[in-house]
Amino acid sequence: MFETAELGRKLEKDDYEAAVPGLRTDLLRVQKQLHDADFPVVILVNGVDGAGKGDTVNLLYEWMDARYLFTHAFGKPTEDERERPPYWRFWMSLPRRGRIGIFFGSWYTDPILRRTYGKHDDDQLDATMRRVNTFEKALVDDGALVIKLWFHISKKQQKKRFRSLEKSPETSWRVSKTDWKHHELYDDFRAVCTRALRETSTGEAPWTIIEGTDERFRHVTVARHIIERIDQRLAAPTPSRPPPPNPDVPDPVTILDSLDLSKRLDKKNYEEALAQEQARLNKLSRKIAKKRLGVILAFEGWDAAGKGGAIRRVTHAIDARQYRVIPIDAPTDEEKAQHYMWRFWRHLPRLGRFTLYDRSWYGRVLVERAEGFASEVEWMRAYKEINDFEEQLVDYGIVLVKYWLHIDADEQLRRFRERETLPWEQYKITDEDYRNRDKMNLYEQAASDMLARTSTEFAPWTLVEANDKRYARLKVIRTACDRIESAL
Amino acid sequence: MFETAELGRKLEKDDYEAAVPGLRTDLLRVQKQLHDADFPVVILVNGVDGAGKGDTVNLLYEWMDARYLFTHAFGKPTEDERERPPYWRFWMSLPRRGRIGIFFGSWYTDPILRRTYGKHDDDQLDATMRRVNTFEKALVDDGALVIKLWFHISKKQQKKRFRSLEKSPETSWRVSKTDWKHHELYDDFRAVCTRALRETSTGEAPWTIIEGTDERFRHVTVARHIIERIDQRLAAPTPSRPPPPNPDVPDPVTILDSLDLSKRLDKKNYEEALAQEQARLNKLSRKIAKKRLGVILAFEGWDAAGKGGAIRRVTHAIDARQYRVIPIDAPTDEEKAQHYMWRFWRHLPRLGRFTLYDRSWYGRVLVERAEGFASEVEWMRAYKEINDFEEQLVDYGIVLVKYWLHIDADEQLRRFRERETLPWEQYKITDEDYRNRDKMNLYEQAASDMLARTSTEFAPWTLVEANDKRYARLKVIRTACDRIESAL
Repeated sequence: MFETAELGRKLEKDDYEAAVPGLRTDLLRVQKQLHDADFPVVILVNGVDGAGKGDTVNLLYEWMDARYLFTHAFGKPTEDERERPPYWRFWMSLPRRGRIGIFFGSWYTDPILRRTYGKHDDDQLDATMRRVNTFEKALVDDGALVIKLWFHISKKQQKKRFRSLEKSPETSWRVSKTDWKHHELYDDFRAVCTRALRETSTGEAPWTIIEGTDERFRHVTVARHIIERIDQRLAAPTPSRPPPPNPDVPDPVTILDSLDLSKRLDKKNYEEALAQEQARLNKLSRKIAKKRLGVILAFEGWDAAGKGGAIRRVTHAIDARQYRVIPIDAPTDEEKAQHYMWRFWRHLPRLGRFTLYDRSWYGRVLVERAEGFASEVEWMRAYKEINDFEEQLVDYGIVLVKYWLHIDADEQLRRFRERETLPWEQYKITDEDYRNRDKMNLYEQAASDMLARTSTEFAPWTLVEANDKRYARLKVIRTACDRIESAL
Repeated sequence: MFETAELGRKLEKDDYEAAVPGLRTDLLRVQKQLHDADFPVVILVNGVDGAGKGDTVNLLYEWMDARYLFTHAFGKPTEDERERPPYWRFWMSLPRRGRIGIFFGSWYTDPILRRTYGKHDDDQLDATMRRVNTFEKALVDDGALVIKLWFHISKKQQKKRFRSLEKSPETSWRVSKTDWKHHELYDDFRAVCTRALRETSTGEAPWTIIEGTDERFRHVTVARHIIERIDQRLAAPTPSRPPPPNPDVPDPVTILDSLDLSKRLDKKNYEEALAQEQARLNKLSRKIAKKRLGVILAFEGWDAAGKGGAIRRVTHAIDARQYRVIPIDAPTDEEKAQHYMWRFWRHLPRLGRFTLYDRSWYGRVLVERAEGFASEVEWMRAYKEINDFEEQLVDYGIVLVKYWLHIDADEQLRRFRERETLPWEQYKITDEDYRNRDKMNLYEQAASDMLARTSTEFAPWTLVEANDKRYARLKVIRTACDRIESAL
C-alpha cells in the first residue's frame, strides 16, 4: 500500500514557486464557496511520525483563511471524555457546515496504536475499523466531505529526519522519546496501518497517501488534493427534497394495536406502589452513582400521552444534581449546523448520572418522516444510524431504556378537549395538534416501522399502555428500576 | 433577618385550592410572554435543608411548561470545572434569553459552607460575596431577571421535618447524614447566612425569604413571587438603542501616538531570534503542561495589523494538542442568547493549555462602540465587566497576555493595496475595511479609552509596534515567553 509513497518524488523550487500562487488562490476560493455551501469538510491528518504532518498543517493555516479552519488534536482523553462513549469527543469536535475541521490524529490513532503495541489482536482491530466505517458513512451520508490524508515516509527517511531535527538546538525539541520508540516499532506499525487503511478505504471516504519526504512535493500534493475534492463535492448535485408524503395511507395494523389499553390502576394502589418504586429508584440512583453507571431514559409517544407527567414521577426520586431532562425542541443554529445525531451526543450523561430525553433521536423517523422534513433516503438510513448510536451507548455500559407511551385516538381527543377546559393546560394544545391527528395513519405507520427496525437485543422498546396515566407512570418507573437493577 | 420567616404562616386547604388555578394560569402566561421577550430569568433556590426547596421546584415543574425550564444543581466540581475559574460552571449553565433556569444551590453554596465549616473567615466570606454582587450585577445589567429565593425553617422545625421523613421507609432516603450534620451546625449556619444575605440583598437582585414550614403557604408564596417579578420585568421599558456615534470627532492624541513605529528587524536577525524564541516557547509549553498553568493570549489591533501572522508564529512552537485558536467572528444564536461575555468564558483553556483569541472580549468597547452596536451605557459598564473577568482569570492562576498590534494609517493603506494585488489576499479586503478607515478617529478614541481603562496591574496591555511585521512577531512571542517564565 505504501510503496507508491516511496518513489522519491520531488518538486524543484522553480516549479514549486510557479505553482503556489494558483494553489493559494484556489484554496481561498474553495473555502469561500464552501462557506456558502451546506456541508462541512473533515480533513484527517494521520501517518508516520516525521512525515511532515505538522508542517503541512501550518502551511494550510498560512495559505487559507484561518478564521474558518479549526484544528483538533487529541491527546489523552479528559475526565469528561472518559465518562462518555469513545466517539463522544470526536462528535463534539466536528466542524459546522461550511467550515473545515482538521483532525490531527483521530479515531484511527488509538486503535492503530493498540494493535501495534499488541494490546489488541487483528479481530479487535477489524471491529474498531468497522465502527470507523459506520461513523464516516454517517457523516458522508449527511453531506460531509471526509478527506483522509496519510503522510508516509520510509523507515530510513524517518531516521534521517529525526537525526537532522535533533542536530539543531532550535528544532531538537520536535523529536521526542516516543518518536524514537515508534521508530523501532516502524515495521509493526506499517503492517497494522496497511490492514487498517485497507479496511477503511471506502467509496465514501477513501484514503490518500502523501509521500512525505520532499517538503515542496508534499505541500503541493496536499493543497491540490484538498482543492480537487472540495471542488468535486461542490459540483455534486444536492438531492432535491421530495414532497411530503400523502396522508391517505390505509389504516395500518401495527404491534401497537395489540396493546391492552384498558389496563388501569386505582388511586390507592397507585400511590402506594409509586412511593415504593420511588424509594427503590432512589436507592438505585445512589448505587449507580457509586458504580459509575450512566442511565438514559428516552420518552416517545403520541401527543398528550403523558410523557411529562411520567418523567416528573421519575425525577422526583432522584437528587437534582444527578439528572438532566433534555426536552427535544426545535434545534438551535449550532445544532442545525451539525449532523442530526449531534445534539443527542451532546447531552449524553456522565458516568453515574441520568439523562432523560423528552422526545429523542427518533424524531427523524417519526415526525420528520411523517411531515416530510426528512427525505425517504434520510429516514431510511436513520434506523441504522440510530441502532449504531444505541449500540455504542450500551457497549460503553450505559443503561438505555426507550419508552413508547401509547394512547388511542379517542383518549387523545378526550385529553385535548380536557386541556382546553383547563386554563393552565390550554397553552399545551394548538391547531397543529389537531392537524397531526389527520395524519394519524402516517404517524402510526412510522411508529410501527420504528418499533420493528429499532427493537434490538441491546436496546429493546418498552411499550407503555398509557390510556390510564397511573398505570403508565408506574410502568415507566418500575421498568427503569428493573433495568437498572439487572445492570448493576 | 429570618425572624419574619418563623411566623408560622399557613394556608388552609380551601384557600390553597381556590388560589391554584389562577396561579397555574399566570405562571404559564408569564412563561409564554417571557418566551417572546429578550431576557433570561435566573431563579436561585437556596436555604435551609428540609425547608421544602425540592418539593417546590417539583411543583413548579408540574405547573409550568417544563420544556422551557432548566434546573441546574451543583455538586462537587468535575475535572472540567476544576480546571477553570470557579464561576465557569455557573456561566456555562446560564439560561438563554426567553428561558428560565432554576439553580438548585448556586454561587452562594460553597462560600456559605466554607464559612460555616470555619475554612474561611468573615473577610473571606465578604470578599466572595462582593464577587457574587459583581456577577449578579453583570447579569442584571445585561437584562436578566435574577430571583433569589431563600427557603427558611427554624431549627425546631427542621428536626421535626427530618424525623417525620425518617419514619416512613418510602421517604427515609430523603434524609442523609449530611442533613443531620448540618442540623447540628444550624446556629452557625444561620449566622453566616444572615451576613451573606445582608451583603448580597442588592437593588438589582434582592433576596426573598420564604417561610418553609407550611407546604401550601410555601408553594403559593413562591408562585406568586415569580409571577410578580416576571410581570414587573416584562413591564419595564427596554432601553432604546441610540443612534451610532458621529464619526467627526476631533483627532485624538493617544498613548498609541507615542509608539515608535519605525522599529524594524532585518531578515537574518529575525529568523535567528524567532527560532530561538520558538524553541524557548516550546520548552515553556512543556513546563506549563507539567505545572498545569493555563495561558491566554488575546490579540487586538487595527485591521491588517498582522494578528494572524503573529498567532501562527506562536502556535508553530506548540504541540497542536495543547492550544486552541478562537477567532472571534459573528456570534452564533446560542451565543447571542447569552450575556456577551459568555462566549469568551466558553472557550477558557483547561489547565496546562493555551487559548489564543484572535480578537476578543474587547470588541464591545472597540467595534461595537464605534459602530453603535452597543449603547454608551453598555460599553461604559463593559470596562468593569472586562476587568472583573480578567481578575478572575488571573486570580485563578491563568497567565493572561493582551496584545495591541499597532500600525499607522499609511501602513494600513499600503497593506490594503498590497492585498488587492495578491490574488490569495484579496478575500481579506472588503469595502467595509475602507469604510472603517473613515471612522479612524472614532476607533482611535475607543482604543485609547480601552487602554486607559483596562490596563490593570493584574492584566497589563502589551503594545506592539507593528509597522514592521518581523519586529511585531518577535515582540509577541518574546513577551509571551517572558510572561510565562515569570509566572512559573
